[in-house]
Amino acid sequence: MKVIVDFCLIPMVGNTSLTPYIAECQEIIADMGLTHTLHAFGTNIEGEWDQVMDVVKRCHWRIHEMGAGRISSTLKIGTRVDRPQSMVEKVDSVRAFLNNQRGEN
Amino acid sequence: MKVIVDFCLIPMVGNTSLTPYIAECQEIIADMGLTHTLHAFGTNIEGEWDQVMDVVKRCHWRIHEMGAGRISSTLKIGTRVDRPQSMVEKVDSVRAFLNNQRGEN
Amino acid sequence: MKVIVDFCLIPMVGNTSLTPYIAECQEIIADMGLTHTLHAFGTNIEGEWDQVMDVVKRCHWRIHEMGAGRISSTLKIGTRVDRPQSMVEKVDSVRAFLNNQRGEN
Amino acid sequence: MKVIVDFCLIPMVGNTSLTPYIAECQEIIADMGLTHTLHAFGTNIEGEWDQVMDVVKRCHWRIHEMGAGRISSTLKIGTRVDRPQSMVEKVDSVRAFLNNQRGEN
Repeated sequence: MKVIVDFCLIPMVGNTSLTPYIAECQEIIADMGLTHTLHAFGTNIEGEWDQVMDVVKRCHWRIHEMGAGRISSTLKIGTRVDRPQSMVEKVDSVRAFLNNQRGEN
Repeated sequence: MKVIVDFCLIPMVGNTSLTPYIAECQEIIADMGLTHTLHAFGTNIEGEWDQVMDVVKRCHWRIHEMGAGRISSTLKIGTRVDRPQSMVEKVDSVRAFLNNQRGEN
Repeated sequence: MKVIVDFCLIPMVGNTSLTPYIAECQEIIADMGLTHTLHAFGTNIEGEWDQVMDVVKRCHWRIHEMGAGRISSTLKIGTRVDRPQSMVEKVDSVRAFLNNQRGEN
Repeated sequence: MKVIVDFCLIPMVGNTSLTPYIAECQEIIADMGLTHTLHAFGTNIEGEWDQVMDVVKRCHWRIHEMGAGRISSTLKIGTRVDRPQSMVEKVDSVRAFLNNQRGEN
């Protein structure tokens, strides 16, 4: 089953930059060949359920290896069986709707 | 690796009770033998990573089978490698701290 | 408008106990007189929208005062206008459903 | 205090398109003049705490007015007092780190 997730991993490392940890996760996601988009509060990933969840697990493992004793992450998980839908379609659908509305006014 | 999660599944079924869906997920979690606690906005589950994630997957599958075309769930995921910690210990630690504070005043 | 939230605040303070921070938030919530329940991954709070959101803001402010340079929290927010529902009713509804099911088998 | 949030609102309207509801929220956010970015699983918004939270409230109110009996939304909330940081800087920091790494190899 296809899944779209929003993954936000927080290594609890105190008062240092999170950038190296987030960058490492980006590499892990890219290495798995999954479609993904980084935003200011997480990363959207789409793919088969098992592959996407495997990436989440690998990120937790790797960030612990990098020295984070604790990790707290949040995952929003979207699945649908009524019809296929990609991440791009979700965003495009809202943008098209807004453009149509503006065109009518 | 052990994990503690907070799992909140929302079947997008419109204006009907979510109770049968949530109850079904409780059964799936209980059948897997995982320690869990239902609260007003999700269920805390603790166990081995693969088992807990398997439960999350089974819940999505089953709720689609029950007729929900779309599901949106949120998962908070906590892992730590510095020391073991159970769900009960997390809550007890805060309660003990509050009781000590009150005792001192 | 009434709201039920699940509030999970993470002070990014590194490798020290989060207990004093979580306990402080519990005091702030209790001082506002709001119905609340601590669980292993957050606190459920119910009340009027403005009061509940004021508590969330006070917690962020106070935890920064306690020395946390950064805070990342998650808030699940439930509102409904079809009928009133309390946190206790949400949990009781699922438990009653499960008990009925078991009674029938 | 400045805040960066990730806001994901789910109107529980059953088997119909969520696009009109999400588009309406985009209009509300834009009307308030807040910097925001739509992604596949929510909208990042930055601004002063009270303004951002006011937008979240207005969205819940408006979506109920549009006919949704129940709404479940998730809000990730980031505040920091150690230094200012915008949404754009968060993403740019990770991208620059990845580019530097690739340049070194």
